Amino acid sequence: MAFKATVLTLYPEMFPGHLGAALAGRALERGDWSMEAVQIRDFALDKHRSVDDTPSGGGAGMVLKPDVLARAIDSVGADDRPRLLMSPRGRPLTQERVRALAAGEGVVIVCGRFEGVDQRVIDARNLEEISIGDYILSGGEPAALTLLDAIVRILPGVMGNQLSGVHESFEAGLLEHPHYTRPQVFEGREIPAVLTSGDHAAVERWRLEEAVKLTAERRPDLLMADEDQPVRK
Amino acid sequence: MAFKATVLTLYPEMFPGHLGAALAGRALERGDWSMEAVQIRDFALDKHRSVDDTPSGGGAGMVLKPDVLARAIDSVGADDRPRLLMSPRGRPLTQERVRALAAGEGVVIVCGRFEGVDQRVIDARNLEEISIGDYILSGGEPAALTLLDAIVRILPGVMGNQLSGVHESFEAGLLEHPHYTRPQVFEGREIPAVLTSGDHAAVERWRLEEAVKLTAERRPDLLMADEDQPVRK
Repeated sequence: MAFKATVLTLYPEMFPGHLGAALAGRALERGDWSMEAVQIRDFALDKHRSVDDTPSGGGAGMVLKPDVLARAIDSVGADDRPRLLMSPRGRPLTQERVRALAAGEGVVIVCGRFEGVDQRVIDARNLEEISIGDYILSGGEPAALTLLDAIVRILPGVMGNQLSGVHESFEAGLLEHPHYTRPQVFEGREIPAVLTSGDHAAVERWRLEEAVKLTAERRPDLLMADEDQPVRK
Repeated sequence: MAFKATVLTLYPEMFPGHLGAALAGRALERGDWSMEAVQIRDFALDKHRSVDDTPSGGGAGMVLKPDVLARAIDSVGADDRPRLLMSPRGRPLTQERVRALAAGEGVVIVCGRFEGVDQRVIDARNLEEISIGDYILSGGEPAALTLLDAIVRILPGVMGNQLSGVHESFEAGLLEHPHYTRPQVFEGREIPAVLTSGDHAAVERWRLEEAVKLTAERRPDLLMADEDQPVRK
């Protein structure tokens, strides 16, 4: 069974979005993965088809109603796919989580809008809150598309040999070393001599040193991370 | 002058993508912001119009050629907009950086594909590498769309009163408290009594406590962050 993504959203027209182009798009056409977008508003039963209401306890913004969202989720039917809620309150997405999701049969993704989603439907439907980063988006849709891009990229057959053997940042807990290609001289800047020396061991050593240096400079948190620290390892 | 985004990409058909829908899309139509996608391949001069080449020093994957990308960047013309390169090697995007970018006149965003971009063009054209999170995408395009969504959302007039007064996660260095709305009882689950008590001080106290509890549970790194730590503050 090919990987199947079901996205619950108030903006189904945003999907498949950029995932309809390039390698992900061709894989979608081939059926290497599939996706459907479910309009949450279709499960609003009142005459105005309202999906949100004012927050209990007061405050600005609107909250997605638990009953409407629950009906939308239940319409997907029972299967073993994890149910995710894209949310800045969620646990930060890691490449490890991406790999685990890609190894499964698919995902059900709920996209929040407005101020948030009623906590009771998060609890009652066992939604796993995932954050793609420490910034605020207009809704869960850009986050869902980003998560799906990361997943689809590593599905079998999707990127073909473009993926094979490519170093993955974070695999080794380090940022990637700098890359160079021809021409040998670009605007007076030469490719570092070691890279054209033919000495493979020296190349590997240089790349590791550069990766460590860059990681120490930009992301000391990655070097300090250990097993006891659940986030950003 | 309205905010202007110029994106350099091998897949201009991915833009404006989801930014063409909902509030961002209507703001785009109104001219509250504008975007253009520049095809990098148009600046390849050889007969095969190659944009990439094998990495110096060996290894898998392909590297975006410095000369081609430099010509594409130079075609945009000189202005004061920051030049960003979406890359997992970059500094993690924060809401603070989003706000600073939104306050400027626009951005020029380079989307990498393949194994990476020649380091010399990053240096020579002063590209600021930005990462939207610790996971690997098919290219810079999904990251660029995510960054632009975060920026466009806070441009004047884009979200109208939907934004006003809404709490922003991370503004206070805390994840957001849970939200509730009607109905009073959902599948046997009640809204916490304090939220319907009418005691505004008690509501605020409860929300702060819940926010601290959730942050401690999911993101202890946010509580531990201090001014000396440049990342994830």
